[in-house]
Amino acid sequence: MTAVNDTPVQLTDDEIFTAHEGGKLAVGATASLADPRALSIAYTPGVARVSRAIAADPSLADRYTWAGRLVAVVSDGTAVLGLGDIGPRASLPVMEGKAALFKAFGGLDSIPLVLDTTDVDEIVETLVRLRPSFGAVNLEDVSAPRCFELEAKLIEALDVPVMHDDQHGTAVVTLAALRGANTVLGKDIADQRVVVSGAGAAGVAITRILLAAGAGEVTLVDSRGIIHAGRAGLNPVKEQLAPLTNGSGLRGGLDVALRGADVFVGVSSAQVPEEQVASMAAGSVVFALSNPDPEVHPEVAARHAAVVATGRSDFPNQINNVLAFPGIFRGALDAGARRITEGMKLAAAGAIAAVAAEDLAVDRIVPSALDPRVGPEVAAAVALAAAEDGVA
Amino acid sequence: MTAVNDTPVQLTDDEIFTAHEGGKLAVGATASLADPRALSIAYTPGVARVSRAIAADPSLADRYTWAGRLVAVVSDGTAVLGLGDIGPRASLPVMEGKAALFKAFGGLDSIPLVLDTTDVDEIVETLVRLRPSFGAVNLEDVSAPRCFELEAKLIEALDVPVMHDDQHGTAVVTLAALRGANTVLGKDIADQRVVVSGAGAAGVAITRILLAAGAGEVTLVDSRGIIHAGRAGLNPVKEQLAPLTNGSGLRGGLDVALRGADVFVGVSSAQVPEEQVASMAAGSVVFALSNPDPEVHPEVAARHAAVVATGRSDFPNQINNVLAFPGIFRGALDAGARRITEGMKLAAAGAIAAVAAEDLAVDRIVPSALDPRVGPEVAAAVALAAAEDGVA
Repeated sequence: MTAVNDTPVQLTDDEIFTAHEGGKLAVGATASLADPRALSIAYTPGVARVSRAIAADPSLADRYTWAGRLVAVVSDGTAVLGLGDIGPRASLPVMEGKAALFKAFGGLDSIPLVLDTTDVDEIVETLVRLRPSFGAVNLEDVSAPRCFELEAKLIEALDVPVMHDDQHGTAVVTLAALRGANTVLGKDIADQRVVVSGAGAAGVAITRILLAAGAGEVTLVDSRGIIHAGRAGLNPVKEQLAPLTNGSGLRGGLDVALRGADVFVGVSSAQVPEEQVASMAAGSVVFALSNPDPEVHPEVAARHAAVVATGRSDFPNQINNVLAFPGIFRGALDAGARRITEGMKLAAAGAIAAVAAEDLAVDRIVPSALDPRVGPEVAAAVALAAAEDGVA
Repeated sequence: MTAVNDTPVQLTDDEIFTAHEGGKLAVGATASLADPRALSIAYTPGVARVSRAIAADPSLADRYTWAGRLVAVVSDGTAVLGLGDIGPRASLPVMEGKAALFKAFGGLDSIPLVLDTTDVDEIVETLVRLRPSFGAVNLEDVSAPRCFELEAKLIEALDVPVMHDDQHGTAVVTLAALRGANTVLGKDIADQRVVVSGAGAAGVAITRILLAAGAGEVTLVDSRGIIHAGRAGLNPVKEQLAPLTNGSGLRGGLDVALRGADVFVGVSSAQVPEEQVASMAAGSVVFALSNPDPEVHPEVAARHAAVVATGRSDFPNQINNVLAFPGIFRGALDAGARRITEGMKLAAAGAIAAVAAEDLAVDRIVPSALDPRVGPEVAAAVALAAAEDGVA
């Protein structure tokens, strides 16, 4: 056997902290201020004409301000990476990174807004008051199950695209990766039973998108075992998913769920013993997405599974949200969409899978996270789907 | 006599709207995302170490995020330029321009936050919730007298520099200009009676800074005449200023106030007839600051006054806030100041006057709005004053 590589990219504290010194974002002017004439165009007195025009016709704000192309990257810092509830201040470096990714892969401007409240209604109220300042909301690192309520209330309250990326970005890329794996393996999602381990933000959204994409069956497992209708103490979201999942009526833990399963998607950090991977059906697919420690080491999983993916950049088949969110928001904003529909998410997954299909292999089921083709392809597909879904 | 030039810089709608297309700001990354290693430093997994460090010591947020050098440019759109209450959406082009000026003249990043509420307490609450996102607040274009209450409550609620620029930026540059004029004329502010016409945001702050700078007497005039203790129906701010002003006990309108006055500062748009300017003391100073229509045309004023200034770029002696706010916020943030004191504002005025002093003349009592020396000089003086005032 190959030596198991347990160490992600080696980074020194020194190089990390140096790179973050002063933060990672800057705001610049796109209009000239170089001489008195330029100043009087971009600022007073010229700007007054633009303001007066928007006052007369508010729809012009999308054209003559940056709000129409600006994403607010919003977090309360309650579920930051694998670090948990570390608060808004400590979440800001992540949100700055996210904003940098929006620019690099979606060509979108964005600003981090980190909130010193964890009250869902207060967060909604705050963003409603700030509504004229931005064109879309990327929710980030908000703890479950609050994230479901928060996203739903924001979608209701705002007339702009809102998406909790930890849910839907992950779900979109997972679906794209499963498409890639199935093409390589000659399998059909409709024939597959998928086990999703973890019923937090990502697990719930992955379950939903797999069902929307026609998965044969999804077995959703949380820390207390397989979710099924009638299980006591389910939160509203799990309650909603119980009758849609576990058609086989399984009862028990992850070991029961995995026996004979075709696909494993881990988004819970709960470790999976090798024998459970071995108990899956022949030609199985394992996505062990927890970071930095996958649910099962990919080299261990590869002894039994036909296709293996992780969330890490130092193994093949990295399932990384950055393949999805820049293009999804770019497409939604380009189309002037008022919301992000299931159809737009499915279209995004399709576009990612289509890029991968150009060079598909068992260790290339998704494009590289840095592939510059992906953002524009996703954006185009999402914009088209927005029009088809009648939200643009 | 010279032909009176009534036309500011000629600008076509076409060039103005073209320059505002898509808005005037962009957010960029200052950290590299060019390869997998750079990505894992600026984003996961590297960023987790920075977030963990800030969670352990929140004061590190100032060093490792952009919040410590970020100005929120905040408006509710209730008093935008000369356009009045045109709302937050229509105010955004002005706030974008302001952010561009912060960058160009203060080297500061800033983001416009325009609010769809005019309730003072709601605005305060919103900014308190967003507190971890920024390092200072520039209030802009908020109507009087709400602006006084809003600024006071924000200063109370936030531990960062807060300044309503329409008040204090204008006041600082006006004081600097008066210093320049007095140096040219060989006069002393302590011997002067200053008439301030307009008791809104700018007029109130100008009155206060002139008193703090030792003006002999200030006569404050609003649309109902000279403000004096005992006048019925004064709002709380005017009530506060009444006993501090009008030491001569004048009663009546602007005509009474101006008779024999040494300095006129107009920030009300109320027109001043030529004969009233003529009634001022010999060697008088006229600052007719309303835009686009000065209270008295500068060429008319110059027939009687020894020094004339306006707010317009197409006449000599432009009194423009851009000489003050970029350096004030830069100095406050550089010093880590928790608030902006009167001493810091006086220091800013002193720094502007010092730059002007290098090349002073009757038509050069303040530096050009585009003078690149001013921002850094103001910042240095303000940072020093912050330390002296014990707020850094």
